[in-house]
Amino acid sequence: MSSTYGHSLRLSIFGQSHANAIGMTLDGLPAGLAVDEQELARFLARRAPGQNEFSTTRKEPDAPEFLCGLVNGRTCGAPLTAVIRNTNTRPGDYAALRALPRPGHADYTAEVKYHGFQDPTGGGHFSGRLTAPLCIAGGVCLQILERMGVRVFARIASIADIADDAPFTAPVSEKPFPVISDAAGEKMQAAIRAAKAEGDSVGGTVECVVTGLPVGLGDGMFDGMESRLAHILFGIPAVKGLEFGDGFASSRLRGSENNDAFCVQDGRVATRTNHCGGILGGITNGMPLRLRAAFKPTPSIAKAQESVNLTAMQPEALNIHGRHDPCIVPRAVPCVEAAAAIAILDSMLEFYGTEYFYGIE
Amino acid sequence: MSSTYGHSLRLSIFGQSHANAIGMTLDGLPAGLAVDEQELARFLARRAPGQNEFSTTRKEPDAPEFLCGLVNGRTCGAPLTAVIRNTNTRPGDYAALRALPRPGHADYTAEVKYHGFQDPTGGGHFSGRLTAPLCIAGGVCLQILERMGVRVFARIASIADIADDAPFTAPVSEKPFPVISDAAGEKMQAAIRAAKAEGDSVGGTVECVVTGLPVGLGDGMFDGMESRLAHILFGIPAVKGLEFGDGFASSRLRGSENNDAFCVQDGRVATRTNHCGGILGGITNGMPLRLRAAFKPTPSIAKAQESVNLTAMQPEALNIHGRHDPCIVPRAVPCVEAAAAIAILDSMLEFYGTEYFYGIE
Amino acid sequence: MSSTYGHSLRLSIFGQSHANAIGMTLDGLPAGLAVDEQELARFLARRAPGQNEFSTTRKEPDAPEFLCGLVNGRTCGAPLTAVIRNTNTRPGDYAALRALPRPGHADYTAEVKYHGFQDPTGGGHFSGRLTAPLCIAGGVCLQILERMGVRVFARIASIADIADDAPFTAPVSEKPFPVISDAAGEKMQAAIRAAKAEGDSVGGTVECVVTGLPVGLGDGMFDGMESRLAHILFGIPAVKGLEFGDGFASSRLRGSENNDAFCVQDGRVATRTNHCGGILGGITNGMPLRLRAAFKPTPSIAKAQESVNLTAMQPEALNIHGRHDPCIVPRAVPCVEAAAAIAILDSMLEFYGTEYFYGIE
Amino acid sequence: MSSTYGHSLRLSIFGQSHANAIGMTLDGLPAGLAVDEQELARFLARRAPGQNEFSTTRKEPDAPEFLCGLVNGRTCGAPLTAVIRNTNTRPGDYAALRALPRPGHADYTAEVKYHGFQDPTGGGHFSGRLTAPLCIAGGVCLQILERMGVRVFARIASIADIADDAPFTAPVSEKPFPVISDAAGEKMQAAIRAAKAEGDSVGGTVECVVTGLPVGLGDGMFDGMESRLAHILFGIPAVKGLEFGDGFASSRLRGSENNDAFCVQDGRVATRTNHCGGILGGITNGMPLRLRAAFKPTPSIAKAQESVNLTAMQPEALNIHGRHDPCIVPRAVPCVEAAAAIAILDSMLEFYGTEYFYGIE
Repeated sequence: MSSTYGHSLRLSIFGQSHANAIGMTLDGLPAGLAVDEQELARFLARRAPGQNEFSTTRKEPDAPEFLCGLVNGRTCGAPLTAVIRNTNTRPGDYAALRALPRPGHADYTAEVKYHGFQDPTGGGHFSGRLTAPLCIAGGVCLQILERMGVRVFARIASIADIADDAPFTAPVSEKPFPVISDAAGEKMQAAIRAAKAEGDSVGGTVECVVTGLPVGLGDGMFDGMESRLAHILFGIPAVKGLEFGDGFASSRLRGSENNDAFCVQDGRVATRTNHCGGILGGITNGMPLRLRAAFKPTPSIAKAQESVNLTAMQPEALNIHGRHDPCIVPRAVPCVEAAAAIAILDSMLEFYGTEYFYGIE
Repeated sequence: MSSTYGHSLRLSIFGQSHANAIGMTLDGLPAGLAVDEQELARFLARRAPGQNEFSTTRKEPDAPEFLCGLVNGRTCGAPLTAVIRNTNTRPGDYAALRALPRPGHADYTAEVKYHGFQDPTGGGHFSGRLTAPLCIAGGVCLQILERMGVRVFARIASIADIADDAPFTAPVSEKPFPVISDAAGEKMQAAIRAAKAEGDSVGGTVECVVTGLPVGLGDGMFDGMESRLAHILFGIPAVKGLEFGDGFASSRLRGSENNDAFCVQDGRVATRTNHCGGILGGITNGMPLRLRAAFKPTPSIAKAQESVNLTAMQPEALNIHGRHDPCIVPRAVPCVEAAAAIAILDSMLEFYGTEYFYGIE
Repeated sequence: MSSTYGHSLRLSIFGQSHANAIGMTLDGLPAGLAVDEQELARFLARRAPGQNEFSTTRKEPDAPEFLCGLVNGRTCGAPLTAVIRNTNTRPGDYAALRALPRPGHADYTAEVKYHGFQDPTGGGHFSGRLTAPLCIAGGVCLQILERMGVRVFARIASIADIADDAPFTAPVSEKPFPVISDAAGEKMQAAIRAAKAEGDSVGGTVECVVTGLPVGLGDGMFDGMESRLAHILFGIPAVKGLEFGDGFASSRLRGSENNDAFCVQDGRVATRTNHCGGILGGITNGMPLRLRAAFKPTPSIAKAQESVNLTAMQPEALNIHGRHDPCIVPRAVPCVEAAAAIAILDSMLEFYGTEYFYGIE
Repeated sequence: MSSTYGHSLRLSIFGQSHANAIGMTLDGLPAGLAVDEQELARFLARRAPGQNEFSTTRKEPDAPEFLCGLVNGRTCGAPLTAVIRNTNTRPGDYAALRALPRPGHADYTAEVKYHGFQDPTGGGHFSGRLTAPLCIAGGVCLQILERMGVRVFARIASIADIADDAPFTAPVSEKPFPVISDAAGEKMQAAIRAAKAEGDSVGGTVECVVTGLPVGLGDGMFDGMESRLAHILFGIPAVKGLEFGDGFASSRLRGSENNDAFCVQDGRVATRTNHCGGILGGITNGMPLRLRAAFKPTPSIAKAQESVNLTAMQPEALNIHGRHDPCIVPRAVPCVEAAAAIAILDSMLEFYGTEYFYGIE
């Protein structure tokens, strides 16, 4: 496993769905930065299960405990570690879980990779629950970035085949279903309900925008902003696609349409359009950074599925019981913000150095 | 700049378009692995300019010289370094190049990031020419993987809005225009010609498939195969989107459609479909790994464009002279193979350890 | 802070002396490896305070809780995290602690580096207490290595100016004062008592030997075994010197004396002497790896010392109260074993790959 | 092989003694920093062979060619690569070289590690010749540090059992035999001559001092200055010991003797003594950083030695022909400066960030 990320800011995520705890360590944060635990709790609540009809009804407190790294609510230069205790740990019937892998999950690949020694309960380390520590780390980074004038905000851009095509320029995080066009949002929710009613699930896309970035972040060829962001974003379970700016749509444009003309705005260089998503040559150009992540539909569905009994090496039907999110996209919105914030703060630390941050707040 | 990539296999790419040389170092290759320079030359030829009507007519020999790391045509355990001399180095008119940034290029971001000290000639380190050393590194990795039964092959999947929808199961590299459906290929070439005739350019997508992988490659959460591949693939200039398996299309499917049912084939576990692109939980599942990269249209176009004179901070029209590829996608095909091969060999080195490789050939 | 170490095996250490907890995450352990918590407890007991008259009387349970990474007592492929709760956390008088830095401690450098935001209580993240999580990580690695036939064992080689010159070929860990010559050990203990009686402290050296290593571990130039071991060993507080084989003494020998002649032993290549400490060109040669670390005397002493009041920028006498180890060397012995074991297991993972480890037990 | 080093500044060293070339890439240097090639040539001359009676008479031009990374004599933000062509490459009698390993060299360990595929000619990648690219990289870093007010300078502290005990406060680099006490230097040279006359060799120690460092460099626990410096310094062939400040001598002192009392000097906090070598808790304290490296005697000696014929697995006498340095310590002095400079500039880049460096000159 390599559940670590970052250069100057090093994130380590640990835990399994039903282990004693899950958590994270952020190593490399400058000292003196305030961490507002209330604000963090509000951020984490956006990812938490049991918020609405589309997420699992299992409700957990999920309040992180900071084990170290804080003194009087501020970072102290030492690694910042927070954990969330798992209240419903259960040993479960290991053998059964391991014998019949769920399609679309890591069950089979983990069984082979770890030679049967993996933790199969609740998805183990592959569980979507591991996005909780990602959101703790990201939530802390978001607070720091905010004070530097950098805002990171995401929204649901599509669910199934329903897209919200409205331009995305300001946060919609306060909405329970974070879309811009509420009409589109209604249709999306209807699509989720329809899938749920049939014991099925749907996927969607999340768009994320970052404003207030300096010109010059990102290092090429392999540490450009796209590479850095992609590396962490593909670490979110269920992400299967990623694009920056117009991305795949760019590949269908002419150069004359896709190039962003330079202009002068308020005495500074800007671009008239932003097809490139604020990144040229891997380096931020001062325009909003814009990316879109594609989430596959929740693999846990009520419908019967074909699997293989690994012990008998025979086909066997699989029926997944329990309640699962018919669509994880609404809860994925803060996860995308978190991952983006971590990658960006890491880049800013390399750009400005740790000394610089003592001027923040 | 961070032009280094990899864990167990560390790639370092260096050079600027008009510096004395460009090149690469691969550190971490086990000893005793044969490097066939003829085969490598054939691979590099696929990326080289001047191959057909769609690429720049500047023809360069581009034969790499191996400075070290080889003894009698085999790796010797020491870093492998190869360089390509730049024959047409030219100092050029720096000031002019820097004052008027080309839309869609790294000119402006580099100017700000490097405070005017960057190498602006021919795009400097941001030039597509830097994919030549990427292809040297990747070409070496491809040869090693091939002997381990792992094949990496890519093709043009679309140009502008013309897609080649044929399933991709075997290499088409021998074709001058590497598509599956020649009919689609004809339309694509017509689209490129049309753009070129209007002083414009087009983009497209490249699909890459990797067969013969063991089950179990990739480490989660942040070193899953998607993260590892994305990190290096977004290092190829002009890549703005990436998806694995059905990627963005997955986000529009139901779970029951997108989940790949398990079955037994030839006594081994397989999946009936491959929507996931051979990766579950970041780990290879033994099915073909499948990805698709989106390339934006070549930003260098003959049409007049709006720019800003950075000295005067005034709008100024820009006319780019010289010949440029109206579409870089055909030449990008081997670059995608190269990048994928490097990421995969790096993963295999961690998986098997260096000792294992002494059994290879 | 960068409290992370390792390539294939990544260690992250977190915590401050008086934070809620201290702990560690080991990411990259293959799955299926047994962790014997009883054996680990015995190992940790060797480092724990309050064992004898030379260590602080503060007795803590210091039993680690494994939060995740284990299933039924075996590693599961997910990161392994363990924490030790701090039972005597106390906010303390921050201002006073920070104003008057203790000579020989990190108080002053941390005050400047972290701009006053560091955790000053009990040394914060710089406390020797942070060697407890190092020993958890190292204790786990030692168990795994043992099963691979690799033994790591250390002993007190000198205290103050009293050396134990006996050759070190077998563990003496079961001794309460781990020396080979008990006569020398008696003199050492007398030296510690004498220093303690005068409100002073003494230092010493620890020798560590690793047997059973394969030929070929270590990667040059910068990941040779000396570099890898030195990187982690200098992370143990109070280590100010390190030598491999004869080290500094080698610098006074002739080449003809220092070169280790090759010979054949039991059908394998060996060396008649082992001045090089089992490492040639950064690579293990199959002979016992041998290193020696120099520990400075405990900086916390009862005697009055000169300091500077940082608020007033005036000289001020400092009197340190409380009980401190008059010599930390006895408790440092398992820390050196732990650090060495981590570096060696990391190297073996790169050498053999993770797959190889499934054959272990 | 892992011939890479560094975090924000990444050094990659490549080449073998008799390959086409040796060289280095430094990735991560900010743009706009002047590289004075004349000054660099003077620095490299101090390491070059053939300077005096103690070094091999083989005289090579060894002028580095910068392949890229410079524009008009200044760094341009792209990786900086320089190579030195090997003029006397020769294939040699591989089999003979490999069959009879030289004691004290990497011949045997490389033979086993690389399964016979290593480059055995002239020591291959393990040759002391690889310190030439280290000195190119270090020489560039030294120039940058100098302009920031940071000076790195080393001297011979001992040869065989003759020590130069004079305090080391100012550079003696201009001396052909860089010692402080010329009387001690005469005795050292006599010791080298005596060893040479007997077909033997001697070792010694090099002391290095760094002045002008800010308070606060270094990150703990594992990226403290000792760890960072040790990691690269043990990469210099023949280094077998390293100590900071009083190092091993500290282990024989009382705490009251070894602690450095704080005082106020010129309105700033200083220490009355500097036993700690300018590092407390892994972090620089503003006093001169001081370290000492132990070099073993040159393993290549004229005297007959015992080896083992690896083909026959029989003892066989070895006679090494050709001329070798009877003592490499004089030429090692700039290598220690180079390695230290690289580690320090890397730390400063993390501390200050790349943006900061645009104020330098």
